[in-house]
Amino acid sequence: MTSPNYRESRFMQLFPIVSWLKSYTREEFNGDLFAGIITAILLVPQGIAYAILAGLPPQLGLYASILPPVFYALLGTSRTLSVGPVSIAAIMIASALNAPEIGVLGDSVQSALILSAESGIIMLLMALLRMGGLVNFISHPVLTGFTSGAALLIIGSQLPQLFGLATPSCGVDMACYRDYVSGFVPATLLIGVAALGLLVFFGKPLTLLLKKMGLSPALTTAISKCGPLLTIVLATLAVTYFNQQVAVVGHVPAGFPELNTAFGTLEKWRLLLPYSGFIALIAYVESVAIAKVTANLRGEKIAPNQELVGLGVANLIAALSGGMPVAGGFSRTMVNFSAGARTQMAMLIAAGLLALAVIFFSPWFENIPKAALAAIILVAIIPLVKLGNILVTWRYDRGDGIAEIATLLGVLIYGIEEGITLGIILTLISYLRKTSHPHIAVVGRLPGSEHYRNIKRHSVETWPHLLLLRIDESITFANINYIEDFINAELRRQPGIKHIVLIFTSISDIDTTALEALENLNQLLQAANKTVHIAEAKGPVLDKLEKTDFFKQLKPGKVFFHTEDAVRELCLDDTAHQY
Amino acid sequence: MTSPNYRESRFMQLFPIVSWLKSYTREEFNGDLFAGIITAILLVPQGIAYAILAGLPPQLGLYASILPPVFYALLGTSRTLSVGPVSIAAIMIASALNAPEIGVLGDSVQSALILSAESGIIMLLMALLRMGGLVNFISHPVLTGFTSGAALLIIGSQLPQLFGLATPSCGVDMACYRDYVSGFVPATLLIGVAALGLLVFFGKPLTLLLKKMGLSPALTTAISKCGPLLTIVLATLAVTYFNQQVAVVGHVPAGFPELNTAFGTLEKWRLLLPYSGFIALIAYVESVAIAKVTANLRGEKIAPNQELVGLGVANLIAALSGGMPVAGGFSRTMVNFSAGARTQMAMLIAAGLLALAVIFFSPWFENIPKAALAAIILVAIIPLVKLGNILVTWRYDRGDGIAEIATLLGVLIYGIEEGITLGIILTLISYLRKTSHPHIAVVGRLPGSEHYRNIKRHSVETWPHLLLLRIDESITFANINYIEDFINAELRRQPGIKHIVLIFTSISDIDTTALEALENLNQLLQAANKTVHIAEAKGPVLDKLEKTDFFKQLKPGKVFFHTEDAVRELCLDDTAHQY
Repeated sequence: MTSPNYRESRFMQLFPIVSWLKSYTREEFNGDLFAGIITAILLVPQGIAYAILAGLPPQLGLYASILPPVFYALLGTSRTLSVGPVSIAAIMIASALNAPEIGVLGDSVQSALILSAESGIIMLLMALLRMGGLVNFISHPVLTGFTSGAALLIIGSQLPQLFGLATPSCGVDMACYRDYVSGFVPATLLIGVAALGLLVFFGKPLTLLLKKMGLSPALTTAISKCGPLLTIVLATLAVTYFNQQVAVVGHVPAGFPELNTAFGTLEKWRLLLPYSGFIALIAYVESVAIAKVTANLRGEKIAPNQELVGLGVANLIAALSGGMPVAGGFSRTMVNFSAGARTQMAMLIAAGLLALAVIFFSPWFENIPKAALAAIILVAIIPLVKLGNILVTWRYDRGDGIAEIATLLGVLIYGIEEGITLGIILTLISYLRKTSHPHIAVVGRLPGSEHYRNIKRHSVETWPHLLLLRIDESITFANINYIEDFINAELRRQPGIKHIVLIFTSISDIDTTALEALENLNQLLQAANKTVHIAEAKGPVLDKLEKTDFFKQLKPGKVFFHTEDAVRELCLDDTAHQY
Repeated sequence: MTSPNYRESRFMQLFPIVSWLKSYTREEFNGDLFAGIITAILLVPQGIAYAILAGLPPQLGLYASILPPVFYALLGTSRTLSVGPVSIAAIMIASALNAPEIGVLGDSVQSALILSAESGIIMLLMALLRMGGLVNFISHPVLTGFTSGAALLIIGSQLPQLFGLATPSCGVDMACYRDYVSGFVPATLLIGVAALGLLVFFGKPLTLLLKKMGLSPALTTAISKCGPLLTIVLATLAVTYFNQQVAVVGHVPAGFPELNTAFGTLEKWRLLLPYSGFIALIAYVESVAIAKVTANLRGEKIAPNQELVGLGVANLIAALSGGMPVAGGFSRTMVNFSAGARTQMAMLIAAGLLALAVIFFSPWFENIPKAALAAIILVAIIPLVKLGNILVTWRYDRGDGIAEIATLLGVLIYGIEEGITLGIILTLISYLRKTSHPHIAVVGRLPGSEHYRNIKRHSVETWPHLLLLRIDESITFANINYIEDFINAELRRQPGIKHIVLIFTSISDIDTTALEALENLNQLLQAANKTVHIAEAKGPVLDKLEKTDFFKQLKPGKVFFHTEDAVRELCLDDTAHQY
C-alpha cells in the first residue's frame, strides 16, 4: 500500500508550488511583489518586441506572457525562472515562418500557435519518456556557439530598423527590408538612437550613479529596471507628438484572447514538426541552463524531467490562449532574481499585472515605434554574443573549439536549424571518438594472492597458454571493433595462447552489435583451436546472455565465477611465469 | 631516414594488391579464373537490372562493373569483395533522382554521375580524416532494419514489373507505374513467373540434385550460378520469338564509354550532396561488413581506412567512366567467394569479360525483358529482408529492438534517408544514455596500507570530515550532470564533510562543459565552506587544466600527487572510522 507520506511527496513532485506555498512568509511576499512589478514592467515591451522579431502581431507576445508563466509557476521546479517570449525562440519562429514550405501555407499566426502546441507536446512526450537527461546532448561550447550565432542574426535583423542603414542582408526576416524602405525618415533614426542611448544609460551608468547618491539597493534596482518602459513611453510620446511617418506597432486588440481551437490541417502540423522539435529542444536546454544558474546561487534544486512538464504545459497553454512559444528568458530571469524574487509568486504577480495591461492599455501600445523596440532587443541581445569565448574554448579543448566555431558559422551561413544540428552531430562524433577506446588490461596474479592486476603496472604471475583480459567498460557497437582489434593483436603477439579468459568485472551491458561480434570472434578463435571463457560476469549480464545461445556456442569455453577458478582449471599443467 | 623496408610496407599499405601478387600461385589463379567467369556471368544481368532499378539507362550499370572493380582490386584490402552496382545503392539513387528538388533539374544520367563523383570524394575525405572507425556509427540492428526496409521498397517496386498487378504504390520509383500500365500483357506475367521459377529452381533444388548425382562441387557451383544468365537468355529468346509487347531494356550503346567530363552546375552538386553523403555512408558500411565476413572466414584482415580509399577511388572512376555509384555486393561477393576466388584477380578477370561483353554483345541486351530482370532482383533481394531478426534483437536488448523497428518503419514510411538518419540518432541517444552514468566510488584506506578501495566492497578506514571520491571515467558533457548529482547527494548524506578529494586515476580528459560545471560546483561548495581537492591526476589532464585558472579558483583546495598525501595533510586532527 502507498503511504500518505509517499503520496504527498508524489503530489509535491508534480506540483512543486505546494512545497513553497505551505511555508510562504510575509517577507518572501514582499520580495516577490517588488520583483513581480519590475518583471512586469520589462515584460510589456519584451513581449511586443519579441513577437515582432518573430514576424508576428504584438498580441502573440503579450498573451504568451500571461497564462503560460502561471502554469509554469504551478508545475516548474525553478523558483525564479521567468517564462515567456524569448529572443532566441523568436528568431527560430521567424526562421520557421520564413521557410519556403511553411510560407506558402499562409496564416502565420496559426503556424505560430501550431509551433507552440507542438513544442509543448514534444516536451511532454520527452517528460513521459524521462528524457530530461537529454539536456546533456548539447555541450556548452555548442550552446554558446549557437546562442552567439542566433544573437548575431537577431542583431542583423534589428539594426536596419534602428538606424535605417542599407544593409545587404536582413538575416532570415524578409519583412525588415520592407519596413526599412517604407520607414526611413530622419525621425526613425533619431528615435532609435535616442532609445538606445537611454537604455544604455539606464544600465550600468545609472546604477553606479544611484549607488553613489546613496540610494537603497531596492530603489536602485527599481529605477534602473524601468529603463525599457520609460524608453517606450518617451518614444511613443515623441511619435504621437511629431506625428511623423515612423513605423509603429499598429493595432493591438484589447481584452483577453479567446480560447484558440482553429488549428489548421494535419499537413501543416507535419511540415512544422521539425521546427517545433528544434524550438522545444532549445527552449528546454536554455531554460534549464538559466534555471540552474539561479537555483545554484540559492542552493535550490532543478528537476529536469519536471521542467519538461512545466515548460511543456506552458507551451500548450500558450497555444490555447493565442500566444507564441515560450521559454525561460535569461535577462528577465536575472532581473527577477536580482530584484529579490524568492518564489514563482513574483511571476504570478507579473502575469496578473500583464493581464491588466492587456485589458486596459492595449490602445496605448498602437503608437510604440518599432525603432524603440529594436533598441530594447539590441540591448538585451548584445551580451549573448560571446565571440571571445571561442578563443577560451579553443585554447582549452581543440575539439570543443571546432564544435563551437562550426555551430556559430553553421547558424550564420546555413540557418538556425542547420547550425544546431551540425553542432550536435559534431559533439556526438567527438564523444564517440573519445569513448570508443575502452581501457583493456592484460592481467596476471599478484603472487601469493587471488588478486589479478594489470601486467604493465604490477609484477604478477602469468601462464604461457592463458590470456587474461579485463575489459573496463560495457561492450557496445561503439567500442567492439577496438576490443576485437586489441584481442587479435594480443594473440598475434602471443601465438601460443590456448585459452582466452574475458574478465567482465566492469561490464554492465553488452549490446546486440557487440554480442554478434563476440559470437563471430569466438567462432574464428575456435577454428584456430583457441577457447574463449568468461569470468566474473555480473548477474544482469549473465541473465541477458542466457536468453541467447551464446554460452552454447562458447563450449568448450566456460563461465567462471572467479578469475581464480578459471586459472586453477585451465592452468593445471602450466607453470607460472613471473613478469 | 626512412628505411627501404618501411617504404616498401607503406607502399604495400597503399596498394594491397602487391602483397598477394608477389607470391601469386598457379593454384590461386585457377580458383580466381573460375570465380571470375562465374561472377561475370552474374554481373551482366545484375548490372543491367540495378541500373533500371535506379531509374537509369542499362549501360550505367554495365560501365560501373568494369573500371571501378579494377581500381578497387588495386587499392582495396578485401581479396574477395565484388565491387560494382548493388541493389541498396540503386534504390538510394532512385530515391535521390525522384526527389522533387532533383527531379526538376533534369538529366538524370548526369545526376547519377555526380552522385558517383561526390560519394567517391566523400569517402576519400573520410579516409584523409582517418574516419574509417566511423563504421561504428551504425549499429547492427540499425543496419539490419535499414537493409530490410530498403529491400522491401525494392520488392514493392519490382513486383508490379513481374506480375503486372495493380499495387497501390510503387515505392519511390514512379517510372514503374508507367511501365506497368503500358507493359501489361499476359506474356509479361508468363515470362516473369517462368523466370522466377527457373531462378528458384537454380538455387537450392538444383544444387541438391547435382550433389546427389555426384557432380564435383566446382561443377555444381558453375551450373547453379548460371541460372540468372540462362534465365535472361531464355526470356530474351521468348520475347524475340513471340514478338509480344513485353517491356524490354531497349537500346544499349555498343563499345566502351567515353571519358565523362560534363559534370553540370555547382548548384546541382550542392543539391545532390546530402544524397551522396548517405550513399557514401551506406556503401562504405555495407562493403566493410561484407568484406569482414569473407576475410574472417580465411583469417585475412580488412583495414577500414584503406577500404575508404579503395571504394572512394572506385566511385570516382565510376563517375569518369559513365557508371552509377558502386559498393561491395553481398550476394555477388558470396558467389565469388564460394566459387573459389582467392584474390582480386577474380574480379580483374570478371571486369575483362564484362568489357568484352559490352564491346561485342551490347545489341543482344536490347531485347532482355524487364520482367526477367525484376525476377533476378527479387531473388537476390528477398534474403535481405530479415523481419524475424527484429524479434531476436527485441528479446535480447529492448533499446536495440526499438532502434531496428524505428529504422525499418522510418525507411518504409518516410524514405531511405530519413530512415537511416532516425536509426543513427536513436543509436546515439541510447548510447549516450548508457554511457552517461559513469562509475563513481566513495573510497577509504585499507588498514595498514596506502591502498584506497570502494567502501561498499572493502572494510576500509574513513574520516568524518573527508570525502574521497574516485570517478572512473573521463568527465564530459555527457556525464558531468550525473557526477554533480552524485557529489551533491553524497554531501547531503554526510553534511559534516569539509574536504572533498576527487581522485582522477581513471580520468584521461575533461572537456569544456565539464570544466565549467566543475568550476561552478567548486564555487558553490566554497560558499558552503567545503574545499575541493584533486589527487592522482595524469600528466595530460594536469597540463590541460593548467592552461585555465581552475587551480587558482580551487584554492585553498590543492592538487595532490597521491591520495595518501591528501589524507595525511587533511586529516591530521581527525581520527579514522572503521567501516
